[in-house]
Amino acid sequence: MTDLDTPAVTVRLDIVERNIRRVHDHLARHGIANRPHVKTHKIPALGRMQMAAGAQGITCQKLGEVEVFTEAGVADDVLLTFNVLGRAKSERLLALARRLARLAVVFDNEVVARGLGEAARAAGTEIPFLVECDTGFGRNGVQTPEAALELARTAMRLGGLRFEGLMTFPNREPGTRQFLERALELFKRAGVPVPVVSGGGTPAIFAAQNIPQLTEHRAGTYIYNDRMVVASGTATWDDCAMRVRCTVVSTPTRDRAILDAGTKVFTSDLYTVTGYGHLLEYPEAAVVNLSEEHGVVDLSACRARPAIGEVVEVVPNHCCVVSNMVDEVYGVRDGKVETVWPVAARGEVR
Amino acid sequence: MTDLDTPAVTVRLDIVERNIRRVHDHLARHGIANRPHVKTHKIPALGRMQMAAGAQGITCQKLGEVEVFTEAGVADDVLLTFNVLGRAKSERLLALARRLARLAVVFDNEVVARGLGEAARAAGTEIPFLVECDTGFGRNGVQTPEAALELARTAMRLGGLRFEGLMTFPNREPGTRQFLERALELFKRAGVPVPVVSGGGTPAIFAAQNIPQLTEHRAGTYIYNDRMVVASGTATWDDCAMRVRCTVVSTPTRDRAILDAGTKVFTSDLYTVTGYGHLLEYPEAAVVNLSEEHGVVDLSACRARPAIGEVVEVVPNHCCVVSNMVDEVYGVRDGKVETVWPVAARGEVR
Repeated sequence: MTDLDTPAVTVRLDIVERNIRRVHDHLARHGIANRPHVKTHKIPALGRMQMAAGAQGITCQKLGEVEVFTEAGVADDVLLTFNVLGRAKSERLLALARRLARLAVVFDNEVVARGLGEAARAAGTEIPFLVECDTGFGRNGVQTPEAALELARTAMRLGGLRFEGLMTFPNREPGTRQFLERALELFKRAGVPVPVVSGGGTPAIFAAQNIPQLTEHRAGTYIYNDRMVVASGTATWDDCAMRVRCTVVSTPTRDRAILDAGTKVFTSDLYTVTGYGHLLEYPEAAVVNLSEEHGVVDLSACRARPAIGEVVEVVPNHCCVVSNMVDEVYGVRDGKVETVWPVAARGEVR
Repeated sequence: MTDLDTPAVTVRLDIVERNIRRVHDHLARHGIANRPHVKTHKIPALGRMQMAAGAQGITCQKLGEVEVFTEAGVADDVLLTFNVLGRAKSERLLALARRLARLAVVFDNEVVARGLGEAARAAGTEIPFLVECDTGFGRNGVQTPEAALELARTAMRLGGLRFEGLMTFPNREPGTRQFLERALELFKRAGVPVPVVSGGGTPAIFAAQNIPQLTEHRAGTYIYNDRMVVASGTATWDDCAMRVRCTVVSTPTRDRAILDAGTKVFTSDLYTVTGYGHLLEYPEAAVVNLSEEHGVVDLSACRARPAIGEVVEVVPNHCCVVSNMVDEVYGVRDGKVETVWPVAARGEVR
């Protein structure tokens, strides 16, 4: 591992294996199906490890990810959690559906439903779907339980679509539980069975059992963990498998070090944290600024300080975007590179 | 162009050509050599257009970029503006130096100088270098003109290194001029000629002539321009060549639209601006939030509102990082895709 030139995105295999097991066991204990989100790693071999641990299937965020993971034969049961719109994408979706036991989609509006229904009918098939519900996040999703039922009914009437349930991201208490409670009541009263209720998010994993409506959970980040997950209290630094190996290339002042990685490795994702990464060897150091290829580290709070040429390991703010910046990830165990994975679905934006 | 599936990163070729010409003419008029930074586009064909317009050579930020652009035969004169450290990179550098008329580097510390000097001596050659000066940005660079002279002298004594001048990024008034004035005085008194003084940055281009010490200027962003350049007053929306074509995939509320691109296309770079992009068709819209694959748009200030399925063109905050997120960029003229460029140096982090 110490021979790797920097910057290099490494993952500790023992931690990855433990993270996969811990999350799967927790969900299994509560009777919640585990449908890991592969957008975090975009690596088929890791998807296979998640399936081998007992996952029900996988979640993809873009059609291109479904293509890569289907080609690699990772799972027969895939959920695509993104509105699929337009003829080009509908055709790709149907081609994939023919190769999988189940390829389900989500949508939150009738325009998407019409397009998919039409394509499915033309292909003489049915696409299973979940209705995406906005239970407090303010992104996609129907806004009320009533709207969820209305969209489900409209879509069922179109033909070519098979209603399977409801989906939300992320689980947020108390909004998610209240929304789902009310929705299931409405669907029950309308005589529409809801076999699947799919929640999501890594910080929400260990409280998923508190939302009794959930039948499955989708999480991605947990496989590696990162600064944001640590900040949420769901993991510790010891649970962080992804470490970006960087070299200190300059110490322009006593209190400033420059790393050989910037936004083109770490991205500038901040979300809930300040600074751009956690130096494991120098926990008091703060990555205060990133340029495209430079990381600017404030050492003023540090007792020990790194020298020029020293390699440090940085836990990134958000592992799901770092995966997408590099062509390969190094799987490391006991200080040795055990495997080099191409990030097969990197850059699959469509 | 309207057949392109989304998200798609397009560049208007007429604007690219005008931007290249305008910047080159400005620098030429003031006798400042133009050394465009290819990290912005990472596309050899665009580097060739910049060279054809009269550029002296190109600037690269990572060794991997030098490799890609050298392989493509774009320029014979390359400046690598990053501290090169370690045996693996030194060997790559020297292999490249043999293929180019001039491959100059910058550094700001003796550790880097020693490594490069040793490698060059072992290869029986000399590497031209500039001393990187921190003239106010607070990133890399020696902190004083005195330190610049001291490092230049130390490096010259090592052997294998040929002093060519000083480098800074970005030009910042009045700090840059004061630093360079004092440095040139010191070097003159010491009898050390300084043939090159290299400044940089796109917002600084049209004031580069106000720093009389500069002999060349490095800028990257200007070829496309973006929201940050518009915010700096250096360009207008009409000068923005890069537009990310996105589809509206949802309108969960009257005031909210969701685009099919998030941080995995736009990144979360903010710098000086608020929000994550400018919708050309809906200038009052605000991209208030990005997830990895979703763009959340606040339409509350809009008179007209986009419908689901509509394609919009978004000028990103920072074009240099968007280039690096995609495998190809579409060159568009008169509404037609004239060329599809692979982003050849995408992901060259080392």
